Amino acid sequence: MTTKNQTILIIGAGLCGSLLAIRMAQRGYHVQLIEKRPDLRKHDIGAGRSINLAFSDRGMKGMKLVGLEEKVKQLCIPMYGRMIHDLEGNTFLSRYSGREKEYINSISRTGLNGLLLDEAETMDNITMIFNHSCKKVNLEEGTVVFIDEENQREVLLKGDVVIGTDGAGSVLRQSMYLNKKFLFSFSQNFLTHGYKELSFPPATDGGFLTEKGALHIWPRGENMLIALPNLDGSFTVTLFLAWDGGEYNFNNLTTPERVTEYFEKFYPDALQLMPHLATEFFENPTGALGTVKCYPWSSYGKTLLMGDAAHAIVPFYGQGMNASFEDVVVFDEILNKHEGDWQKVFTEYEKVRKKDTDAIADLALDNFHEMKSHTASALFQEKRKLETAFEKEFPMEYSSKYSLVTFNEEIPYAEAMRRGRAQDKAILNLLANGKINLDEPLSNTLTLVKRETERILIDESITNQLL
Amino acid sequence: MTTKNQTILIIGAGLCGSLLAIRMAQRGYHVQLIEKRPDLRKHDIGAGRSINLAFSDRGMKGMKLVGLEEKVKQLCIPMYGRMIHDLEGNTFLSRYSGREKEYINSISRTGLNGLLLDEAETMDNITMIFNHSCKKVNLEEGTVVFIDEENQREVLLKGDVVIGTDGAGSVLRQSMYLNKKFLFSFSQNFLTHGYKELSFPPATDGGFLTEKGALHIWPRGENMLIALPNLDGSFTVTLFLAWDGGEYNFNNLTTPERVTEYFEKFYPDALQLMPHLATEFFENPTGALGTVKCYPWSSYGKTLLMGDAAHAIVPFYGQGMNASFEDVVVFDEILNKHEGDWQKVFTEYEKVRKKDTDAIADLALDNFHEMKSHTASALFQEKRKLETAFEKEFPMEYSSKYSLVTFNEEIPYAEAMRRGRAQDKAILNLLANGKINLDEPLSNTLTLVKRETERILIDESITNQLL
Repeated sequence: MTTKNQTILIIGAGLCGSLLAIRMAQRGYHVQLIEKRPDLRKHDIGAGRSINLAFSDRGMKGMKLVGLEEKVKQLCIPMYGRMIHDLEGNTFLSRYSGREKEYINSISRTGLNGLLLDEAETMDNITMIFNHSCKKVNLEEGTVVFIDEENQREVLLKGDVVIGTDGAGSVLRQSMYLNKKFLFSFSQNFLTHGYKELSFPPATDGGFLTEKGALHIWPRGENMLIALPNLDGSFTVTLFLAWDGGEYNFNNLTTPERVTEYFEKFYPDALQLMPHLATEFFENPTGALGTVKCYPWSSYGKTLLMGDAAHAIVPFYGQGMNASFEDVVVFDEILNKHEGDWQKVFTEYEKVRKKDTDAIADLALDNFHEMKSHTASALFQEKRKLETAFEKEFPMEYSSKYSLVTFNEEIPYAEAMRRGRAQDKAILNLLANGKINLDEPLSNTLTLVKRETERILIDESITNQLL
Repeated sequence: MTTKNQTILIIGAGLCGSLLAIRMAQRGYHVQLIEKRPDLRKHDIGAGRSINLAFSDRGMKGMKLVGLEEKVKQLCIPMYGRMIHDLEGNTFLSRYSGREKEYINSISRTGLNGLLLDEAETMDNITMIFNHSCKKVNLEEGTVVFIDEENQREVLLKGDVVIGTDGAGSVLRQSMYLNKKFLFSFSQNFLTHGYKELSFPPATDGGFLTEKGALHIWPRGENMLIALPNLDGSFTVTLFLAWDGGEYNFNNLTTPERVTEYFEKFYPDALQLMPHLATEFFENPTGALGTVKCYPWSSYGKTLLMGDAAHAIVPFYGQGMNASFEDVVVFDEILNKHEGDWQKVFTEYEKVRKKDTDAIADLALDNFHEMKSHTASALFQEKRKLETAFEKEFPMEYSSKYSLVTFNEEIPYAEAMRRGRAQDKAILNLLANGKINLDEPLSNTLTLVKRETERILIDESITNQLL
């Protein structure tokens, strides 16, 4: 480890910022890690918002990079598939993969962030400051004005470079947007649906009231409920519901009676596990769901956006944090090549990485429709069964789109999307046109799917060149 | 015509705002039409920026609506196709349609806007105020603060409703973006390329130095030059060039010698018609090209965005003004249904219209690549020849994507895109796979293309349901 006489100022000590701080400190930089909220290891922060997360292979790559692989495993609860709950309360498990070792994990946001902050605290070349919110950034100078939340005084800090990991509402990104000296592409797109966090309590013996090893989904076409397990035996339950339209929506679920009526009608088996539904529903905030994209991510070789600040996505692929951790890994690889020239590091990083974060943003939106609606469709279920069978029988030869995105961390998101979407089209069209005969040997069907996938990819490459 | 005791405050007297003002006045409303610039009929405004435009059937629909069809024809120069110029100076005409009566027109922006302002001036219930720039809008009250550019004083105006036709940099839209009381989806995306307006002068006898009845294109893969005729015999010539990258770009064309060198290398035949190239290149501004989308377009039943303010697009389909005029037509139809309830009018308008303006935005981006690159490709040219032959031989049975978008104003943009893209895919794949035999009767080929198009549309509808 060489000690470098440069300071990296990181705005935001959330998941991405803390991981980045550790890695940059390991590389020998001085790191100033500034967080607007109090230290979440000592204070209870933001109840009712994204309490747990899906942690998978791309996230693990980030934890491996800083040597925290074993520690993070202690926090993980494996989820092997989607447990689909129908209206009658019947359930069936749709596995995430036909390969046994491929599963995702439920993890506590606070637990994971705490682990990273604990690690950061052990490093002499990281200074952590809490309760300081970023007010504005001078992009050309690399100076940042923070407000000390305890006395409302302004504090000016300066880094050799400034990296904004300050989340979906990034102040650094806003400074880039308001700066009119360069063309800044930017988008924020809100979903028609919001979300509300609820819960199932632990069983009286401390165990789980429903299957622990799965991500539970109640797909109801337009809306859905999901549940992920926590280490204490509880589940974090999230309702995804339209803001308006339809018979029930966030704008008209205004009384405990109406909320209960809605759950009785659509989620009766879940309702039985929710003694505090009415209280939670009105105490917890209703969150918006949005996708943020922008470009460039850097300015003047001085400032850079990473994580949600650069690419906030909807939560339906369970990839938000995983993508942010992968950002750190990709950034670290580019530092290996161009360390010493920040301009080059930043511009190569944004150029290499952008298409992949765009892809996971789009995949996450696709998955919203898949989860709330398609998981309940017979054709879709047939497709999943076929794919799981392929993965089980021919583990080296087939990976579904879900597997490509989630378990194949060496394949970039954009490539996983291209290949995965073509496979999905191939299988769905073959099934819909009655061209798959399940009495034939499975290897024949796999060959057929592969051939059809190739045909689709070739057609696409012709039209992509000229359309 | 009934006189209604309500005032519509329109921000921006550009093309969309002036057409809207006339139509709303015809419906009997009081109209206040406020423009930040001086009256363009009396002052020379914004040289070097979008001097002429392509005017076609959707734009004509708007002019018909207000009874200006005959007058606008006086301003039109028909362009029957794309005149493609290769590197050696060879040219060939690729017609816009196989049907003789289908062509687009070159029209002067100032001439068209002046015609609309002249008409507006004759109407007693329109008040026009120039030199007043919009500063901010109170969305809930419908009050607008303007700055009188002559004395910098603030002027407060109020409408029963406020409609922002204040262009790509809309202040009304910015007020919606900054208002945090409702979720406002917004995007601005800049192209990698900028543009610069140049010219061919008229011939000494007042005629045209090159073919008058065409839109000229010099496609050079990454970059291109285009030219449109003006009534005075001149051509407005536009260079579309990358900001950076490649051997020549806007960042490195910094001396007259280098500009001339670039034109000698890539546009030698055009250069011969450009005696003032070096002067114009450095006197005229370099413009950015961007797409703006947002939603909702209205707030509180009080304010509404129309035209570029709601959906600014890149110029490559020649549909920007046409789409804005069509906005007025669609809005007028919805007023026929729900007049008296602005909330209902606004929300139905935005709901009905959004998918179509999104479609033309995407089509315009596609056309950038088509113009600068594909028009020079043999496969693409083969496709165009086939389509022109279909349109000529079977005028009732086939319309290319270009025809659907440009000449079929009864078909909404979104539907034109869906059908047009499928056709393009069908023809390109059939050609690339050697499945089209030009020795067969053309009717057989048309049947083949139609069948393949249907297959693609059916496959899409299956995957769209589940992907």
